[in-house]
Amino acid sequence: MFKYNLNLRSTIDYSLRNFGDQDIVYRGERLKLKEFFEGVSRLADSLIKLGVKKGETVAVLDWDSLLYLEAYYAVPMIGAVLHTVNIRYPLETIFYTMINAEDKFAIVGEDFTNIAEKGSKILNNIRYWILKDGKNSQIENSISYDSLLKTAEIFSFPEIDENERATIFYTSGTTGFPKGVTFTHRKLVLHAISLALSLKKSPINLSQDDVFLGLVPFFHAHAWVFPYTAIMLGNKLVLPGRYDMKIVLELIKKEGVTIMYMVPSVLYMLISYPDIKSYLDSIKGLKVIVGGSSLPIGLARKARDLGIRTIGTYGLSEAGPVVTVSYHNSYANRIDDERRWEIENAPGIPLPFMNLRVVDTNGKDLPWDGRSVGEIVIRAPWLTDGYYKDPEKTEELWRDGWLHTGDLAVVDPMGYIHIVDREKDAVKSGGEFIQSILLESIISEIPEVGEVAIIGRKDEKWGERPIAFVTIKSKIDKEKIYSHLNRYVETGRIQKWWIPDDIIFIESMPKTSTNKIDKKILREKLRDYIVESN
Amino acid sequence: MFKYNLNLRSTIDYSLRNFGDQDIVYRGERLKLKEFFEGVSRLADSLIKLGVKKGETVAVLDWDSLLYLEAYYAVPMIGAVLHTVNIRYPLETIFYTMINAEDKFAIVGEDFTNIAEKGSKILNNIRYWILKDGKNSQIENSISYDSLLKTAEIFSFPEIDENERATIFYTSGTTGFPKGVTFTHRKLVLHAISLALSLKKSPINLSQDDVFLGLVPFFHAHAWVFPYTAIMLGNKLVLPGRYDMKIVLELIKKEGVTIMYMVPSVLYMLISYPDIKSYLDSIKGLKVIVGGSSLPIGLARKARDLGIRTIGTYGLSEAGPVVTVSYHNSYANRIDDERRWEIENAPGIPLPFMNLRVVDTNGKDLPWDGRSVGEIVIRAPWLTDGYYKDPEKTEELWRDGWLHTGDLAVVDPMGYIHIVDREKDAVKSGGEFIQSILLESIISEIPEVGEVAIIGRKDEKWGERPIAFVTIKSKIDKEKIYSHLNRYVETGRIQKWWIPDDIIFIESMPKTSTNKIDKKILREKLRDYIVESN
Repeated sequence: MFKYNLNLRSTIDYSLRNFGDQDIVYRGERLKLKEFFEGVSRLADSLIKLGVKKGETVAVLDWDSLLYLEAYYAVPMIGAVLHTVNIRYPLETIFYTMINAEDKFAIVGEDFTNIAEKGSKILNNIRYWILKDGKNSQIENSISYDSLLKTAEIFSFPEIDENERATIFYTSGTTGFPKGVTFTHRKLVLHAISLALSLKKSPINLSQDDVFLGLVPFFHAHAWVFPYTAIMLGNKLVLPGRYDMKIVLELIKKEGVTIMYMVPSVLYMLISYPDIKSYLDSIKGLKVIVGGSSLPIGLARKARDLGIRTIGTYGLSEAGPVVTVSYHNSYANRIDDERRWEIENAPGIPLPFMNLRVVDTNGKDLPWDGRSVGEIVIRAPWLTDGYYKDPEKTEELWRDGWLHTGDLAVVDPMGYIHIVDREKDAVKSGGEFIQSILLESIISEIPEVGEVAIIGRKDEKWGERPIAFVTIKSKIDKEKIYSHLNRYVETGRIQKWWIPDDIIFIESMPKTSTNKIDKKILREKLRDYIVESN
Repeated sequence: MFKYNLNLRSTIDYSLRNFGDQDIVYRGERLKLKEFFEGVSRLADSLIKLGVKKGETVAVLDWDSLLYLEAYYAVPMIGAVLHTVNIRYPLETIFYTMINAEDKFAIVGEDFTNIAEKGSKILNNIRYWILKDGKNSQIENSISYDSLLKTAEIFSFPEIDENERATIFYTSGTTGFPKGVTFTHRKLVLHAISLALSLKKSPINLSQDDVFLGLVPFFHAHAWVFPYTAIMLGNKLVLPGRYDMKIVLELIKKEGVTIMYMVPSVLYMLISYPDIKSYLDSIKGLKVIVGGSSLPIGLARKARDLGIRTIGTYGLSEAGPVVTVSYHNSYANRIDDERRWEIENAPGIPLPFMNLRVVDTNGKDLPWDGRSVGEIVIRAPWLTDGYYKDPEKTEELWRDGWLHTGDLAVVDPMGYIHIVDREKDAVKSGGEFIQSILLESIISEIPEVGEVAIIGRKDEKWGERPIAFVTIKSKIDKEKIYSHLNRYVETGRIQKWWIPDDIIFIESMPKTSTNKIDKKILREKLRDYIVESN
């Protein structure tokens, strides 16, 4: 008898055998999958020779590079733990996460040598800095990636237990330093499988000919597990490196990209690219899976006008991260096209093997009426076991045996969830939740509007009242926004008391390290604004 | 934290939530998936009330009925073990398997009451016979299924560990009584997932609109796991009951069946149905997955002439059972249509997560040259842990940590396997294997030929020499068969020394309990024949 482990190697064994001549594209390079796997093997061999031991953590700091993708496999497949460092964090926070994760090695892309130089003076836990651009490094315990790989041989991977830790990455909380979440091989494999099954449903209908290009950074929640999924299925994968919309659009055109994934603000950047009209042929029919934040329907409409089909998804770091994708269930097949298009842009329905409930504060299931607001709690085979070295917050996360997402949602009668708000961002007025994400989505439909964020302002009478922050693309006055909202009040889509007390026009939206709108900063702005207006 | 188990319930939770109004059709009945699950729940409640304990085995004897499908879920989901009794075995063998499996309960379909009556006198291990037709039963410890279910309530299923045993069924060996193979929840779930992923590849391209109807008995190796897969995915499933080609063709027509699965001789029966011409519209575009024995190319051609697309598959009971399906890998996408059609009718390439090797007697991998014959050995997450209560045969099965299939095959340069023979059926002449399945396939192309089987006859000089058994549809002489074979010798497709020493025409092919050609009986016939001809 042989105990079969659901480890990353099992996904590679399969695709290598059957799709070994599929392409992986990065900058000027075009590799066959089997050549890529040889690279993985050589990196693994080099890491072992450098002294990486089972259970030790190896950090990676880079853009979405080929080297990074190799590390996605090589590090966990030798039994080590991959720390995907969030390079968008402030330096201090980066170092905090590298200390907290107890990183022993760091692989550093050529644009991040300066971080290694600073880090080498502060971090005692790093035994080796492996530098892609290691020619003139002043770091004592550093080694050039290229020279390290020069003597690499094809490595024979050991059998790794599926419950061994494979990855760690950090997620920002409301207060204090980010928290580490860890994932085992089994979790990654089952997550990739479940995502694959959902992508193969309508409307995505993933086929072997589909070509993936993601604009979700590799450091951000396994890039939503898409790289693992694409490679497991033997689909062509295109890596963008550092995000540059010109390069991205050229890649879409040249490589025949058909499936992308990104947060709404990156989609906004993509479709706002000045020369977008010259790429209309290439982006026609493109499917873009949009998550991280809710997808404003106005943005989805603008994308549709360019021939792009957007599909909603919802997730969170603790879920590794995907929870729902807006594919069709049997109920969605019986509604009219326009309504189904709207549903496709909702966060969606649970992935296969994702057990999702929306519950009240007593943990009781709420009705699927599209109105009852509760917290999303989940179980799935790929959720994090908890926060690294933080048993207290872990217990809070997993209270009653369900992972508490902290996200507020309603479920519609077809079973699709609609996020109302992050619990921490929620605006509660007169004891009732305002569906700020729906409000944002409706305001985003106005052609002159760029991005929107609803923030709660403390209010003596109501507890909180909503304020809208808005960026504009062309001149518009508040009255036009109010009359747009009032039309939705008349049709019963939103409540009269949801209408923001004020609308604040700003130059640009502040963003988090993962390109979501940073509501923390907007709340601070709002405090300043009140002081100013007093 | 919550330990997520890959158990059957996890597949149901998902499809119930998202595809609860999908149809399951059986005879006059049409149920929604959610109604079906209520039936599963009531059956589970009834079994618990009757005293079924965790780990106890419940036998089912029936055609492919709704009741059977309910038991497929209800029995394992209460933590009991489902024994799918092979009702095609001789009575003595049926009872042997029910004693060996230590069955404690037996659910008996209306056509099998007589087996229960006889069994009740012999089997002391059965505490209750649950009879679908229980009105006039003389069996003391029996209960009518319908009265049992009358008081059933909706059952709240317990959490079952994924490594709990879920099923047992028996597989015939070369000698002696059949051996029991067991499967856990985890194995069933991962098998269903892997099958789903392969069905979603080209050329099957399974979509949500596809409708399944299988002609692989429920007692036979989980009906190739198709029922679990279809329900997990929320696809419509049609149950045929007892196989009657008239009823089957009517169901195909009425329910819009698009995907079927069966052994070659059942396909032969289907396309030989006298009135098949009146169903041409309904079977046009039908995809039929053919396994159990290799699919003769002549049969595939005949099916193609009727508009049916056949797809090969290979498996064995010990693998639970599917090992390969002939979907397209990246190499198959670059060959011409006719060659690809041939490949689609080969046994295929490994399912996702199936690790398959063809090895020589020293366990060394053989080259993918389409010529080197070796044994198929496999690893996958869903293979049986071994033979029930038979550690010796288990060790033999799993020697060196690989499951030894006992099947001889070659691998072609694209990675597709081609079964040469069962090891026990293999014909070795002058120290070299004759590819008898290829020979059979080629002879089957002759329009006058029905079914073909190659059997080895002992030969003093060569060790063995091949003899062909052939059934005919219309008059043909041996010479025509020989000249057909000689043409293939000329093109280099087969070797001259493979040509059978003799061709024996017989009335009909003997079949095993699973409708495969029974080569054991043919070998006995051959002994008689030799005696006769001496």
